[in-house]
Amino acid sequence: MVGGGKGSFIGPIHRMAIRMDDLADLVDGCYSHTDDWHGLIARCRGKIDFLAVCTPNSSHYEITKAALEAGMDVLCEKPLSMTLAEATELERLARRRRRVLGIPFTYSGFPMVKLARDLVKRGELGKIDKVVLEYSQGSFRKIDFSKPLDKRNAWKMDPKKAGPSCVVADIGVHGFHLIEHVTGLEVRQVLADLSSFAPGNRLDDDASMLLRLSSGAKAMFTVSKVATGEENGVRLRVYGDKASLYWNQEENNYLSVKYPFAPERIYKRNAPYIGDLSAASKALSRIPAGHHEGFIEGFANIYREFCAAVRDRKPHDFPGAHEGVRTMRFVEAALRSNKNGNRWEKV
Amino acid sequence: MVGGGKGSFIGPIHRMAIRMDDLADLVDGCYSHTDDWHGLIARCRGKIDFLAVCTPNSSHYEITKAALEAGMDVLCEKPLSMTLAEATELERLARRRRRVLGIPFTYSGFPMVKLARDLVKRGELGKIDKVVLEYSQGSFRKIDFSKPLDKRNAWKMDPKKAGPSCVVADIGVHGFHLIEHVTGLEVRQVLADLSSFAPGNRLDDDASMLLRLSSGAKAMFTVSKVATGEENGVRLRVYGDKASLYWNQEENNYLSVKYPFAPERIYKRNAPYIGDLSAASKALSRIPAGHHEGFIEGFANIYREFCAAVRDRKPHDFPGAHEGVRTMRFVEAALRSNKNGNRWEKV
Amino acid sequence: MVGGGKGSFIGPIHRMAIRMDDLADLVDGCYSHTDDWHGLIARCRGKIDFLAVCTPNSSHYEITKAALEAGMDVLCEKPLSMTLAEATELERLARRRRRVLGIPFTYSGFPMVKLARDLVKRGELGKIDKVVLEYSQGSFRKIDFSKPLDKRNAWKMDPKKAGPSCVVADIGVHGFHLIEHVTGLEVRQVLADLSSFAPGNRLDDDASMLLRLSSGAKAMFTVSKVATGEENGVRLRVYGDKASLYWNQEENNYLSVKYPFAPERIYKRNAPYIGDLSAASKALSRIPAGHHEGFIEGFANIYREFCAAVRDRKPHDFPGAHEGVRTMRFVEAALRSNKNGNRWEKV
Amino acid sequence: MVGGGKGSFIGPIHRMAIRMDDLADLVDGCYSHTDDWHGLIARCRGKIDFLAVCTPNSSHYEITKAALEAGMDVLCEKPLSMTLAEATELERLARRRRRVLGIPFTYSGFPMVKLARDLVKRGELGKIDKVVLEYSQGSFRKIDFSKPLDKRNAWKMDPKKAGPSCVVADIGVHGFHLIEHVTGLEVRQVLADLSSFAPGNRLDDDASMLLRLSSGAKAMFTVSKVATGEENGVRLRVYGDKASLYWNQEENNYLSVKYPFAPERIYKRNAPYIGDLSAASKALSRIPAGHHEGFIEGFANIYREFCAAVRDRKPHDFPGAHEGVRTMRFVEAALRSNKNGNRWEKV
Repeated sequence: MVGGGKGSFIGPIHRMAIRMDDLADLVDGCYSHTDDWHGLIARCRGKIDFLAVCTPNSSHYEITKAALEAGMDVLCEKPLSMTLAEATELERLARRRRRVLGIPFTYSGFPMVKLARDLVKRGELGKIDKVVLEYSQGSFRKIDFSKPLDKRNAWKMDPKKAGPSCVVADIGVHGFHLIEHVTGLEVRQVLADLSSFAPGNRLDDDASMLLRLSSGAKAMFTVSKVATGEENGVRLRVYGDKASLYWNQEENNYLSVKYPFAPERIYKRNAPYIGDLSAASKALSRIPAGHHEGFIEGFANIYREFCAAVRDRKPHDFPGAHEGVRTMRFVEAALRSNKNGNRWEKV
Repeated sequence: MVGGGKGSFIGPIHRMAIRMDDLADLVDGCYSHTDDWHGLIARCRGKIDFLAVCTPNSSHYEITKAALEAGMDVLCEKPLSMTLAEATELERLARRRRRVLGIPFTYSGFPMVKLARDLVKRGELGKIDKVVLEYSQGSFRKIDFSKPLDKRNAWKMDPKKAGPSCVVADIGVHGFHLIEHVTGLEVRQVLADLSSFAPGNRLDDDASMLLRLSSGAKAMFTVSKVATGEENGVRLRVYGDKASLYWNQEENNYLSVKYPFAPERIYKRNAPYIGDLSAASKALSRIPAGHHEGFIEGFANIYREFCAAVRDRKPHDFPGAHEGVRTMRFVEAALRSNKNGNRWEKV
Repeated sequence: MVGGGKGSFIGPIHRMAIRMDDLADLVDGCYSHTDDWHGLIARCRGKIDFLAVCTPNSSHYEITKAALEAGMDVLCEKPLSMTLAEATELERLARRRRRVLGIPFTYSGFPMVKLARDLVKRGELGKIDKVVLEYSQGSFRKIDFSKPLDKRNAWKMDPKKAGPSCVVADIGVHGFHLIEHVTGLEVRQVLADLSSFAPGNRLDDDASMLLRLSSGAKAMFTVSKVATGEENGVRLRVYGDKASLYWNQEENNYLSVKYPFAPERIYKRNAPYIGDLSAASKALSRIPAGHHEGFIEGFANIYREFCAAVRDRKPHDFPGAHEGVRTMRFVEAALRSNKNGNRWEKV
Repeated sequence: MVGGGKGSFIGPIHRMAIRMDDLADLVDGCYSHTDDWHGLIARCRGKIDFLAVCTPNSSHYEITKAALEAGMDVLCEKPLSMTLAEATELERLARRRRRVLGIPFTYSGFPMVKLARDLVKRGELGKIDKVVLEYSQGSFRKIDFSKPLDKRNAWKMDPKKAGPSCVVADIGVHGFHLIEHVTGLEVRQVLADLSSFAPGNRLDDDASMLLRLSSGAKAMFTVSKVATGEENGVRLRVYGDKASLYWNQEENNYLSVKYPFAPERIYKRNAPYIGDLSAASKALSRIPAGHHEGFIEGFANIYREFCAAVRDRKPHDFPGAHEGVRTMRFVEAALRSNKNGNRWEKV
């Protein structure tokens, strides 16, 4: 593992997720910025099953590249890179070297998100016309800007380490992937209005966006780190011409489906009927309905599928290089739209 | 009363709302399109306290105008007119004739919306940076388009009767008013992406909009009649730099306020502490907390304030000509934005 | 109307409920204790359609008796009387005189309670085995017992005016009626553990009860006025061998039904499918789903059915003398059980 | 580990919980009934840190006894034994041998339950007067009784393996412990009405109980495995004279506290303010608010504290022999009460 050391939010989650299903042992790592990841890659070459990259955004590209070139499989934190060009290069490299490249777009590992995707795929919603996605955090409202920022927040507002975008690149990519994953549609165009509300923040911390999807569907998409009082409010609504679905990450064990002429249905994770609707949803559940699984379990599901791919050398159900490229394409289009007076940009 | 006869949704609500507080007696009316409202105005002149106009949009202007000119006070359904020019004329006419002109933007009559407004006014939220408003109905998904439309739906999709907009003029104006009423800010600009998803519908039935508010706040605003499975989903989120609020019309007796460093607070209608925070909220409650009031009561609150103005000949707390003009300004700007390639338009 | 004057909680609700559907005009009344209800009955004899009795418990019996004897139909507040013997006498008197006697067990007038009853009747739940009912108020925690009680609370704790029970007679009867109404079963036995937690209260303000129902079902039933922080928490859960239902008065427009092998279903008041399941539920709804109806509307539904009976001289769907007797039978059995060391008593 | 093999619900949870925090390695085990646990104890003697006992109830006592006598620390599934006498003996044995004995009453390991306990301890609720606890599962409604039962269910209905009680011993003990843990009060008396609703079940599968707590509080307590449609519905309400709390296991990251004169407060797991209110709640959280932790994490918390005790050889915050004895005392009293005509029995 590179990065994810002391004070990191995501590092411990990676480690708990790996242990959850006893998938792998953590054998070596350099957990802070100053450590020598070159050395790590050199000494682990040929000896480990995969490398987990949990550093700030700016080093994702070079570390992942080096690891792929050293013949390693890699699970790299999102966003995959600072630019679309880098992401595209990594995708090509992984393909050429036949390496597995995974990216933990965590929410797509949640069992009820898999159910949502599979219900859409089965046609339960009909043709999708509208999507509303809120990804609202209030994290930047918990910062005392009169003091030096702590490490966990500082790099996210620093263009050198975070890249050209803060909120869109950090959590917007999660939302974007969630939309494409659940609807099975492609986002074709984005129109973005970005803001910096946190004192002194030079990057975006709030984004109001319109999307146009393949098949003509429209979407509204808000992403924010200044949504005061919100913790990790990911709320997805997908409206088809036959039914709609609603998933709220903060009540992640449930999925609601609403109909014009029938009562709303609340599906529950790992309930007896789930397997008939979504084998993936059932497979990613560990314990019975009513005994909740949470974020670590969702994260572990990404690892589970990734490790299966590492083991089997064939595709499994987890986000990888393709999704990394898609999300970077989106980040760049959103930034372009905002720069160009909020006009539509192709994704 | 003009309009609101058999098959009408809103007519019976007006009548129940009026009776709720025993404010007025319904003495005369012409309840269908073919009736002679000219005759009604002529015979009621000087004999009634006010006229309620519940007809389809296209006749709001002329009936309201005639009534004002006949010296009557008028409560006219939204939208006030087909065009901004008409609304402006009615506003001037009412002012000149010193007549009371009310418009039932119902949600602003709900006690917890008054509390929301008053909490914002007291500074509880701090400076407002972001607003998210969903007004999602699935009503057009309940229509069997293979058959002739019933009267209640037909006129809303008919440009001659509904005017140039369906969903924005019909329910978008409610949402727009709610935003301005609660935040105390003005919407300065709108960028709108309108769609017609219902089969054969020539008007907008879905709108994805971005707003810019005075003081620099941004808003996302979706309005839809094709949000399958939704009933009357009005969900308002206002994020300030100190706190945020959430109000859901379908749970209208509650208001949630969230803080960065304190537990979420759920305020309850007419609970003992409400009066200290919002005299208006308390005044508009009839029965104790825990015994819910609903839509009719909210509607009756608009009437209560309107009738007080009719009686006292001075302003009370209800939406009137000014709000009628603001909302028409918004409708026209949204239509213009959509026509002009989704660019920003001034409201 | 007798009683229900200034400071009364229930008086204004009666009046709003009557006006809601324009069912009747309030023509005469004596609204305070000191008024002469004898005079009222004398002067209204033969001139009114019915008398509404909203006085404290202790005078229900004598006023209702006098009115019935004067040939009036009567809607009397619960509990119908101070003793079972009185209730039985009133039931006989009403039958002999062919008078309509109604009692506003309000919750049975809520559309989703009617749906619950009708789903049970249709066998949707199968054989009912278990019922859990909470009726929890915190009203007595809002009283400052260091000062003289205000009128609204004082009589409820005064055995002379309230009778031998406070919480069981005041709100326990609502819960009891709700159980019998929804399940269609009879409560056969009760085991009650009553408490007086409010300072200086000589009557019961909290009751923990076990019930046994016809068909062998068991129930748990808690009623409280010292459930701090609760407003009017009526929560009913009915478990059959095929499905269960859950209704929460504070979210009264919804009804949840849960199955072993299917997703939970959330039914919504007046949604398109309601009429097929429960004609009564549909008939008692005034406005579309998503536009909530509340307590006043539920109360008005009792009046609507009662007035239909007054008009048609035949039974309609509202609680009357029989329910008045059943509930008094329950109150006396619960008091007996508590006195006799919490043993089972026949209802 | 003994027991918890193929088809077991709890076995995998133990293993995931142990790995979650990397507390221990599973070095040896006999996972099925026919395996030789004597051999396991013999070969592990002196070589392991502790033994986890996950067998059916009937062997808890003898295995735990043997392990304690072999000088092992033990974490034994609930209920600790078949009888109170056995539990008492194990408690004495553990004390005499200075061995750590833990029992996974899982819910007491949930961070928001710790917060609940600590809020009570700080006096936030005042004097506790009433408790309502529902522990409702519908698991027995998912069984096809026309076929042979699968192993997981069969032993729970078999008096030889489960002991004299099914639902009270299996999940009632969780509820009982939760009440005592959160309120800090002792349950002094129980009055129980047990039923067997599942076809052919000779043991209790539903219990309606009244409790009396030290300090005079009353409680209602329902436990059921025939609550059709429920998954794992643990809902705890504690009413003090100053405030009340509500915790629902199926929304376990939240805790609601309600006041007579202030808005309801929703506390969120690991939010910034938690540490000031409950160090234990904060210490048992792994990831930020909004990223939910679930059942496995709660279970892991029991292990975390247990392992700390194993390591430090001093008491930590987890349920042990004392709680095992208390719960067995309760089981026996409830069975006695039911047998003796539902009279009060001392716990």
